[in-house]
Amino acid sequence: MGILSGLSSPKDLKALAPEQLDDLAAEIREMLIEKVSATGGHLGPNLGVVELTIALHRVFDSPEEPLIFDTSHQSYVHKMLTGRVHQFDTLRQKGGLSGYTSRAESEHDWTESSHASASLSYADGLSKAFALTGRGERNVVAVVGDGALTGGMCWEALNNIATGRDRNVVIVVNDNGRSYSPTIGGFAENLAQLRMQRGYDEIMEQGKKTLKSMGWVGERTFEALHAFKEGVKSTVLPTEMFPELGMKYIGPVNGHDLDSLDNAFRYARTYEGPIIVHVVTEKGHGFAPAVNDIKDQMHATGIIDPVTGVPKSKSAPGWTSIFSEELVAAAERRDDIVAITAAMAGPTGLTGFADRFPARFFDVGIAEQHALTSAAGLALGGLHPVVAVYSTFLNRAFDQLLMDVALLDQPVTLVLDRSGVTGSDGASHNGVWDMSITSIVPGIRVAAPRDGAQLRELFNEAVEITDGPTVVRYPKGSLPAEQEALTRFDDGVDVLRYTDSTGAEGDGDSVDVLLVSVGSFAEVAVQVADRLGELGVNVTVVDPRWVVPVAQSLVALADDHDLVVTVEDGVVRGGVGSLIGEVLSAAEVDTPLRQLAFPDVFPEHASRNELLADVGLDADGVTASITDWLENLFGDAAAAAPTE
Amino acid sequence: MGILSGLSSPKDLKALAPEQLDDLAAEIREMLIEKVSATGGHLGPNLGVVELTIALHRVFDSPEEPLIFDTSHQSYVHKMLTGRVHQFDTLRQKGGLSGYTSRAESEHDWTESSHASASLSYADGLSKAFALTGRGERNVVAVVGDGALTGGMCWEALNNIATGRDRNVVIVVNDNGRSYSPTIGGFAENLAQLRMQRGYDEIMEQGKKTLKSMGWVGERTFEALHAFKEGVKSTVLPTEMFPELGMKYIGPVNGHDLDSLDNAFRYARTYEGPIIVHVVTEKGHGFAPAVNDIKDQMHATGIIDPVTGVPKSKSAPGWTSIFSEELVAAAERRDDIVAITAAMAGPTGLTGFADRFPARFFDVGIAEQHALTSAAGLALGGLHPVVAVYSTFLNRAFDQLLMDVALLDQPVTLVLDRSGVTGSDGASHNGVWDMSITSIVPGIRVAAPRDGAQLRELFNEAVEITDGPTVVRYPKGSLPAEQEALTRFDDGVDVLRYTDSTGAEGDGDSVDVLLVSVGSFAEVAVQVADRLGELGVNVTVVDPRWVVPVAQSLVALADDHDLVVTVEDGVVRGGVGSLIGEVLSAAEVDTPLRQLAFPDVFPEHASRNELLADVGLDADGVTASITDWLENLFGDAAAAAPTE
Repeated sequence: MGILSGLSSPKDLKALAPEQLDDLAAEIREMLIEKVSATGGHLGPNLGVVELTIALHRVFDSPEEPLIFDTSHQSYVHKMLTGRVHQFDTLRQKGGLSGYTSRAESEHDWTESSHASASLSYADGLSKAFALTGRGERNVVAVVGDGALTGGMCWEALNNIATGRDRNVVIVVNDNGRSYSPTIGGFAENLAQLRMQRGYDEIMEQGKKTLKSMGWVGERTFEALHAFKEGVKSTVLPTEMFPELGMKYIGPVNGHDLDSLDNAFRYARTYEGPIIVHVVTEKGHGFAPAVNDIKDQMHATGIIDPVTGVPKSKSAPGWTSIFSEELVAAAERRDDIVAITAAMAGPTGLTGFADRFPARFFDVGIAEQHALTSAAGLALGGLHPVVAVYSTFLNRAFDQLLMDVALLDQPVTLVLDRSGVTGSDGASHNGVWDMSITSIVPGIRVAAPRDGAQLRELFNEAVEITDGPTVVRYPKGSLPAEQEALTRFDDGVDVLRYTDSTGAEGDGDSVDVLLVSVGSFAEVAVQVADRLGELGVNVTVVDPRWVVPVAQSLVALADDHDLVVTVEDGVVRGGVGSLIGEVLSAAEVDTPLRQLAFPDVFPEHASRNELLADVGLDADGVTASITDWLENLFGDAAAAAPTE
Repeated sequence: MGILSGLSSPKDLKALAPEQLDDLAAEIREMLIEKVSATGGHLGPNLGVVELTIALHRVFDSPEEPLIFDTSHQSYVHKMLTGRVHQFDTLRQKGGLSGYTSRAESEHDWTESSHASASLSYADGLSKAFALTGRGERNVVAVVGDGALTGGMCWEALNNIATGRDRNVVIVVNDNGRSYSPTIGGFAENLAQLRMQRGYDEIMEQGKKTLKSMGWVGERTFEALHAFKEGVKSTVLPTEMFPELGMKYIGPVNGHDLDSLDNAFRYARTYEGPIIVHVVTEKGHGFAPAVNDIKDQMHATGIIDPVTGVPKSKSAPGWTSIFSEELVAAAERRDDIVAITAAMAGPTGLTGFADRFPARFFDVGIAEQHALTSAAGLALGGLHPVVAVYSTFLNRAFDQLLMDVALLDQPVTLVLDRSGVTGSDGASHNGVWDMSITSIVPGIRVAAPRDGAQLRELFNEAVEITDGPTVVRYPKGSLPAEQEALTRFDDGVDVLRYTDSTGAEGDGDSVDVLLVSVGSFAEVAVQVADRLGELGVNVTVVDPRWVVPVAQSLVALADDHDLVVTVEDGVVRGGVGSLIGEVLSAAEVDTPLRQLAFPDVFPEHASRNELLADVGLDADGVTASITDWLENLFGDAAAAAPTE
């Protein structure tokens, strides 16, 4: 690590001799493989952009010229080159480096969301600001994958950037033919066709030769290239969308050849107006286990062997695989079940379905809006679509869920994986908002299974519902122990514990607490009930299973208890506790209510369990909170009689 | 109305002789002008699609072949041709015809949202369903304006439709060069360039001749045309986006020539696979006052004179114009204020700003996602963007507000017009969800001014805030009377009324109600306080002004009263009352709380005041609700002593 460890800023990188750069690239790849193998992270995407990132930082003046990484899971190399190489051991650990760009970490990080397709919009805004404030000569660079270009935001942004003929926006299309999985759609097929026509190797070779032989000779050479391009279509960026929008473009450029990249970026930097640089890269480049991983080129890995790429710990089948099984089983029984993913078939558990029922499986690209509204269309055509998506990405399709699915009462089942606190992926990957936003939607039904058995049951209930959208949401992580219900109310509420020693609730001899446990908190809730029982507090633990709408039995139970406590894996604001409060208020039931939920802040990255413990959402924390509340309400909680 | 009034379904239309159609078109125009002049509505867009809609219903078999109207404000002609001509007097009135397509009205209406750019996604889903269920020969037709194509959803959908080579999706691009106002962006400039190059009249004339001379001769003729087109670029659909996506396209077609339209649609109907038909229309066609309206070709009118087009009642300056004045004034003082609209400069009050500061004004197209994230970019560049948008359309940009603005703590001010119940525009135009969704966003501040004076004050406070997003939201309709505050707490809460006869609140002699009034309900709240005061109930009316976050003074006030009632112009679920409930619960203040808000259903269309009265949100309703609650809580409300 002779060269890399000596670089504390892009200035140092610029001072290197060109002949040192291949060694630097090799050092970076070595470090990526070593460190990401140990911590887990986005290995394939970063291996693909080593040369690209070196060239960007050699040519552009970050941070004065912002480099915006779309999604920013491919920003590890950028982090290494901007003074963070010595912190790389801490990647994605509590207190350590974020897995995405982070404004708190470095002035070189301008943005931090991990949601795709936003970079061009940021770049449009920044370039407008620069133009208005006399800094218009500065370039704004957006690095965007071909996958992210399937998202509608990119189209909206391109349509605007194209009109800013005097603004220096450089759009670097990092074309590796992949989203998480292969990029879909007409645009991608066209890109793929070009690469196949000419052959990947040939593009790489020709780009290299053409640009190398030219050296850096300024605009005229590129104008000549441009003219040539116009004549011979197959050598140009293989979509006419950009020139029709009025955009200059150059490419394809071999994304692993430093000289070609350097030439292309130097041209782009001096070009006046928006320009697209089309760079062809290979995901996982330089690490055979990644290149040869046909599934996703090691898009995101856990802890792996740094030589073989084999995972070091085999993870137990979790929530996702249970959903996966139940979906296939339901689809075997029913012809009308179809499945939709927004470019995440593997992570959301749809691969089995896709293999078994290819005609009924739709990957729509990184396009959650279209996922929901095309699902509404499928439902209008008589089918029952299951849309599987990470909870955090549903935020993109709130309007479509509300206006295109729910307003028409269409039976669309949303399966939200990675709901609640997700942990190491950082603020923008958390699914702590889904219950708040879905519960706003009129007529929706939301289920939060507490364990694997309940996931099976609730998913199957959801796909039987024919009059409006349903949601089944579950967290990241391994499955908790199953909690048997003592009894189930007619409206579906499960009672998991009574700790009243007499067996009768509301007996007036001691304080009665109704603990409403949402989803995977059941295990914690039962532990808490047992602990409080030892203190003489009667606790009824219920799992509503369907958290939206609120079951009527909860209202009656709340009326019979002295305190209602809700515990859930989402934010306080608008969460299930809040919803129950609204329903109790409407029913004029004024039993004191307390919400245990994630605070209304953006979570930092750390493990899920660390984050939950930090905010008091483990058994210790919940017990302590309830004990405090009882003392404040009724004096000594362990003492028998409540005040009424 | 000899022909039109005899048409009860598209079958009757198909039975007409071709030579009757010009007369029919004239009758439809006459009726549009007469009826929409009387009720208000979308006049210009419907005048533009008279021939287009006739031709669609002549060629396609609705409802088996769905016609999906994007946004569907241009579906009036469709309504007339599908059995609803005799109900046209009731347009947009309570119990009458909706201003958009409506599934309850007719089997010919497949969708009903008024949010733009969704039609292609519906069509993609429907065609997938037809293909899977053995109905693949049926066409699915989407009618989409060039304005709606600036929305990212269209790009997401096109990218998917393009790959469905065996699916019969017909995309009719209704190109009138307008969104609400002229369509913006690179794509639109390209369309405009083509129309100018050739001249509008020439396109109209040539389209007519070419297609007429060919008659209906099937695919080979069109293949020949296609080949010709490939050679002579300027005669083709002026973007290469579609063929690069693998889409067949024909056009431009004169959208006011019935024969040309008939030929083009018959070809499209038999073409196997997705196809785009590019139709050039004139917004307002056939009504001089609309055609000559340079502002927006009478996109949406109130009640007007059916001959001159002059509005019959001059509306008083309202919320929008006060915002408009304050924005210009703020921008005069501060160079860093810029403004963004998503294709709605006029309706959201930005025209004055745009005229005064053209370089600081950005119309981004019908692209709310890009509006928010480019605003974040502008803010990162040191400016303070003001994004003015209808409340309902903010739903499209929830993720961008959360992840791209708030996560980065950027100072972006959202000004939400048409918040709350909007009335006659129907379910999907209501702004009843904005407080629920914005309050989920960590660090956001939301203001709900109660009158014009407060709008001035709160807007100016909002643009002074530099650490995160701010929202100022106000309703449709005229300004209510100004309500002077008796006093203001340090944290900004205004006290509007005490009705305690002793002057001291919480005196223990009678029931004390804290009435928290949100926004424009202040007038009603004060009336209610006066009425309850006459019954011996002490009411403190407060207006928090900033409803998010909850002011600490409200917590103390709640603790001092016997009942807290919130009244707001949004839904119950997650609304301000709900938020106050959360905060009181966290503070362990258990004063009974009741929420008065819009129920969690999609509002029907009717006037705003009708809708509010229906759900008890007028002075009578609020008084009755509070009286009932007090009786249930404390026995006779007029009696003095509360129970504690």
